[in-house]
Amino acid sequence: MVGTAASVPTAARGTSATMIARGGRRWLVDCGEGTQRQLMRSGLGLVDLDLVLLTHLHGDHYLGLPGLLKSYGLRDRERPLTVIGPRGLTALMTALRPVIGRVPFPLALQESDGGTVWAGEGARIEAVPTRHSVASLGYALVEDLRPGAFDPAAARALGVEEGPLWGRLQRGESVPGAGGAIVRPDQVMGPARPGRTIVFSGDTEPCDSLLEIARGATVLIHEATFLDEDRERARQTRHSTAREAAALAREADVGLLVLTHLSSRCMPRDVRAEAAAEFARIAIPRDFDQIEVPFPEKGPPELHPARAPAGPRAAQAAAEEPATVSAPDL
Amino acid sequence: MVGTAASVPTAARGTSATMIARGGRRWLVDCGEGTQRQLMRSGLGLVDLDLVLLTHLHGDHYLGLPGLLKSYGLRDRERPLTVIGPRGLTALMTALRPVIGRVPFPLALQESDGGTVWAGEGARIEAVPTRHSVASLGYALVEDLRPGAFDPAAARALGVEEGPLWGRLQRGESVPGAGGAIVRPDQVMGPARPGRTIVFSGDTEPCDSLLEIARGATVLIHEATFLDEDRERARQTRHSTAREAAALAREADVGLLVLTHLSSRCMPRDVRAEAAAEFARIAIPRDFDQIEVPFPEKGPPELHPARAPAGPRAAQAAAEEPATVSAPDL
Repeated sequence: MVGTAASVPTAARGTSATMIARGGRRWLVDCGEGTQRQLMRSGLGLVDLDLVLLTHLHGDHYLGLPGLLKSYGLRDRERPLTVIGPRGLTALMTALRPVIGRVPFPLALQESDGGTVWAGEGARIEAVPTRHSVASLGYALVEDLRPGAFDPAAARALGVEEGPLWGRLQRGESVPGAGGAIVRPDQVMGPARPGRTIVFSGDTEPCDSLLEIARGATVLIHEATFLDEDRERARQTRHSTAREAAALAREADVGLLVLTHLSSRCMPRDVRAEAAAEFARIAIPRDFDQIEVPFPEKGPPELHPARAPAGPRAAQAAAEEPATVSAPDL
Repeated sequence: MVGTAASVPTAARGTSATMIARGGRRWLVDCGEGTQRQLMRSGLGLVDLDLVLLTHLHGDHYLGLPGLLKSYGLRDRERPLTVIGPRGLTALMTALRPVIGRVPFPLALQESDGGTVWAGEGARIEAVPTRHSVASLGYALVEDLRPGAFDPAAARALGVEEGPLWGRLQRGESVPGAGGAIVRPDQVMGPARPGRTIVFSGDTEPCDSLLEIARGATVLIHEATFLDEDRERARQTRHSTAREAAALAREADVGLLVLTHLSSRCMPRDVRAEAAAEFARIAIPRDFDQIEVPFPEKGPPELHPARAPAGPRAAQAAAEEPATVSAPDL
């Protein structure tokens, strides 16, 4: 969680940015002002991102991009970077050209109003239109089904010799078994196992498109700009309240709801209390906290608090804003 | 010292920004990405600045401005703001218009290529052209002469009654003394006393215009992007080395040289050692440190280290980057 504040940063929270680390890939969802510095402060350093997914074109979600591109340029980055966002992305980046200057590495811009925006490496990224005050997208990282679990007892019973033949079965090949009979993978492998799905709401009112793509998701990272007492203001500005985000998470039956985009006007403990009345599996991370998302069979997603505080008033901020995990079954 | 890094921020240092607090005024020299957050983290909060002085139009010196203007707008600021910078400022701000959006308070842009850019409240701000890779300015905040010290013994000797008459003398009025004789202020006041002068180099090679305006300055805040071993690179990129900055400070005989715009490639202790060989009165602040600048007769300028560390790796960073003050006579 690179930046978890709404609109205006606070001492403890930077503006919107969430990094996805999967295999060797590092992707960013939104890139608020100061994101490059947050990466430095997190201990990750200036990560060579491959993808930046912008949920919408409000400054607190993209103003970190020009500085990030310049810093990449200063260190002679050659690796390509793709920026994906809603309609208007290309016009915005053209307007920013005098600011960004020469980009010495391949930079691809990709506008979307929904659908698959990336696929490969056993996963895809789906964009869905959401309901904010400007064109906006939610994103879902959806992993492909994975092969089922290998059953050593079944392989032995069919007379397949332990060793390289077992590996070939697990890679989907048929191999010889007892008396030269052919043994097929489906005879020794369990049913295909689901991958992980992580959904990002961006800034939005509760909306059906997000509900649909979030159904059964491993993790839903949802904005919670307001408390329900400010629901009218949430409607005017097209944001969600903590209660609304939690109600959507309950209906979608997600594995963990991660609330972010917190306003400095709300205490995280109030956000937690309100959401917890609707849904049990909630995390409200601070900046630099990490959410570990294991494969479903390995256990539930888990919040790992950052090791050290994050500012001169950190002790005070930490006392005011505890990282709250409310999940009786975690 | 709001941000003291060169080009790219580090975990411990934000990009360029220095705040001047004088009387009720708060001015900013440069406004790198993340400046609004640095103000929050410093404990000062989102200060209502009256003036922003940009030394040049490189991203690490202005990319914090759009977010700052937006945050002011979000909280319905009405107070006017003036941004002063070199030629190109208006074109840049026009290009940034789609990013900045509507500014609901009076925003004045003022381009300069040298001369007095502001005057009032017993001081003026002078801009001087400097020598960087783009149009660039240094700034000097120059206070007017102040009335001399009042001499109570002289007033008594001339028969002026202690009380309101002493106040009138100090405000420049003549008053009745012994036997009704007129006593003039110059009979009881010492010579006019100099104000304070604070000079900001911005990014520049050593240059005569800066040397001239820095002569006798109370404080010179000068960039030190390189060490002398990288002097050739400093020439190519039109920056200064620590040794060069200190040599200029010595020739100008400033009260205190404050070195900033430090590259992550240089250890502050090496910067200090190199500069100290040329000039004794040096401070190398960390972010959030403050430089107190008393009136000359009250004592020398003084660095006050920030009270608490500034990041998750703060302990480590602090060990690597001690705030170094090298001033045998401070």
